[in-house]
Amino acid sequence: MSICILSIGSELLEGSVIDSNSAFIANNLTRFGANVGLIRMVKDNKDEIVHLFQKYSQKYDIILTTGGLGPTFDDITAECLAESAGLSLELNEKAYNHMASRLNKAGVIIRQEHKHQSMLPSSCILFNNNVGTALGFSIKLNKAHIICMPGVPLEMKDMFLKEVLPFVSKTLNLKEKAYIDLHFLSIPESDVDVFIRSLKIEDNVQCIINAGNAQVVVKLRGDNKEKVEEYALKIEKAFPENFIGRGDILPSEYLVRLLKSSGKTITCAESCTGGMLSSLITDVSGASSVFYGSVVSYDNSIKENVLKVPQEILNTYGAVSEECAYAMAEGVRNLMKTDYGISITGIAGPTGGTEEKPVGLVYIGVTDGENTKVYRNIFNGSRQQVRTRSANKAMQILIDYIKNKQ
Amino acid sequence: MSICILSIGSELLEGSVIDSNSAFIANNLTRFGANVGLIRMVKDNKDEIVHLFQKYSQKYDIILTTGGLGPTFDDITAECLAESAGLSLELNEKAYNHMASRLNKAGVIIRQEHKHQSMLPSSCILFNNNVGTALGFSIKLNKAHIICMPGVPLEMKDMFLKEVLPFVSKTLNLKEKAYIDLHFLSIPESDVDVFIRSLKIEDNVQCIINAGNAQVVVKLRGDNKEKVEEYALKIEKAFPENFIGRGDILPSEYLVRLLKSSGKTITCAESCTGGMLSSLITDVSGASSVFYGSVVSYDNSIKENVLKVPQEILNTYGAVSEECAYAMAEGVRNLMKTDYGISITGIAGPTGGTEEKPVGLVYIGVTDGENTKVYRNIFNGSRQQVRTRSANKAMQILIDYIKNKQ
Repeated sequence: MSICILSIGSELLEGSVIDSNSAFIANNLTRFGANVGLIRMVKDNKDEIVHLFQKYSQKYDIILTTGGLGPTFDDITAECLAESAGLSLELNEKAYNHMASRLNKAGVIIRQEHKHQSMLPSSCILFNNNVGTALGFSIKLNKAHIICMPGVPLEMKDMFLKEVLPFVSKTLNLKEKAYIDLHFLSIPESDVDVFIRSLKIEDNVQCIINAGNAQVVVKLRGDNKEKVEEYALKIEKAFPENFIGRGDILPSEYLVRLLKSSGKTITCAESCTGGMLSSLITDVSGASSVFYGSVVSYDNSIKENVLKVPQEILNTYGAVSEECAYAMAEGVRNLMKTDYGISITGIAGPTGGTEEKPVGLVYIGVTDGENTKVYRNIFNGSRQQVRTRSANKAMQILIDYIKNKQ
Repeated sequence: MSICILSIGSELLEGSVIDSNSAFIANNLTRFGANVGLIRMVKDNKDEIVHLFQKYSQKYDIILTTGGLGPTFDDITAECLAESAGLSLELNEKAYNHMASRLNKAGVIIRQEHKHQSMLPSSCILFNNNVGTALGFSIKLNKAHIICMPGVPLEMKDMFLKEVLPFVSKTLNLKEKAYIDLHFLSIPESDVDVFIRSLKIEDNVQCIINAGNAQVVVKLRGDNKEKVEEYALKIEKAFPENFIGRGDILPSEYLVRLLKSSGKTITCAESCTGGMLSSLITDVSGASSVFYGSVVSYDNSIKENVLKVPQEILNTYGAVSEECAYAMAEGVRNLMKTDYGISITGIAGPTGGTEEKPVGLVYIGVTDGENTKVYRNIFNGSRQQVRTRSANKAMQILIDYIKNKQ
């Protein structure tokens, strides 16, 4: 049950494109308990590709390729596959019709080069492409099924999940593993670690803890669904204040859900993050029912005139201060007439820091109109990192604030 | 002069991490005219790594590895390298002192596992690590220099550029190629293509055109610096209105530079992009001198009460309309007291579209207080794509507007 992934394209060896396809494929196969033994980038070189098809087909059960299915001269995957198996290349009618119909719809005139794309090894199996013009195809060579997919990630992902993964899973008799990700906010990784150690998890369940972006993610894997579920429930219930959900949930999605369920609305006053927090929240479809809007108050004149931060505060304490974060949160809440207001003011760098107020110093304020709190943070990293960490931390502070009020 | 890159780590074969290191290394080596013949992911498996070191060292001049240098049990790169060359593993004092000093500064107590990290092949060459605890190291085996770097991208990149690239370049006698990227905005790829074809560029200069994110990028490469420069100048000058700069310049950087040089200020009123445009602009260090702030007016109450969009417009034409974009741009400019105001209002989806106003319909307005223009756009793609395309398009419209006024 060993699988090999070949990413085909000279641009990969020149480093002008990062190969994200292989990780996507490998990640999905690993969920099904398959063993990916090799991931390799291959140039658009006929001799090399033919050689690798012949060599690896004696070793692996499945060879998955991405790239080289297009209409241009350097798209040679089909040709190489036919040659490696001693098959002829033929115009595949089904592949041609699929391509022609998509090109017609897009108003593109079909040229000779397009035909090249539909020349496939005789007697190959086809895989549908709902997103693009090139169908996937497969033949059996030695012990391997060699399956060729497009390189465009959107096309490849759709084809892989809908067509190729079921085929591979059936061929290798794979069974999806139990696979649960638990997301926690506002808790140290070590607290979760100590609890999980105390569970003495059995060997047939794997457990990994990842921390990052203000989240702790516990990943549980195993063949026994009941067992994995049992551990997941125990871990969730150990930290009810911090657990935000399973799967790929983002803090912003959890925040929107939390606000919806409590019927509350929010607004933000952003300085150093310059709109990033608002942008993260409005990434969530349906945010409009809880997020009214925000003010990016980059210049002090905006803090003063729009958010009504008293000039005295700006003069005495400066824009990056506890007092200013306090006034910004209250000011934006009053302006937008929402239940909660949140503010961020800090120094993202790389310039603008002083001994007293270094780069990375960020104040985050939150208010419900009665109870206003301000948190002082020092974030490390580049300008981009300070901004991202500030926005993530603000989301976390807001979630905690709302939960504590419930 | 052939180079092999091995990315070491079982997590890569399980697809839980995307390998961006290889592309970074390959891209830099390609600039120096080196030929990267192989990129391959390798599991944390001793037999396999030793076998590959022995095999590939007979074929490649340079083998670069990333990953497996840390303190945990599955970090085995040094051990494998020593074994493949029949060398002993020794506590390397310089590597140990470097690690100890960094750990001390971070307040971490040195444990036995940390020592493991400093056990390196005898007589290896060291490469400094300015970012993390693990030094890089290298030995010669067969025809190859095998150079091992950390897997953490920040550490690897710093070490590669400062230490490893100069070593490889000297060893292989590489010479940096002329390498110019030209960035253009607001022009169809095909117009640039037609002009470049008319130049009949010589074979010893490579030219690629890429389009995306509202930009067209022309990439020129070659051994002859003067020739590459000559073509670059011709292409720049053919589209003076559209050329924004060389290198890796972003439209936001160009916009900030353009505003600085003309001494003008801007503000944004964002609806469907929810702060993304403001966030892109404030990503640029120094944006504070030209960007005063913005209003994210997600809810209609904010459009009306903060931006002073007349209720009549919202009732008659709706929030996603030419009229509303017009009023938002003028409203935010009046509120923030800047030279220019820009507005975005549209339907990002996936829900909320109608026959008349489909998902992807986005109005972008721009004003200087006297002359207000609104552009109607239909963007394809997911919610995230519609938002990103809207923000990029607004930046492009603003740049064109400012340039036309000059």
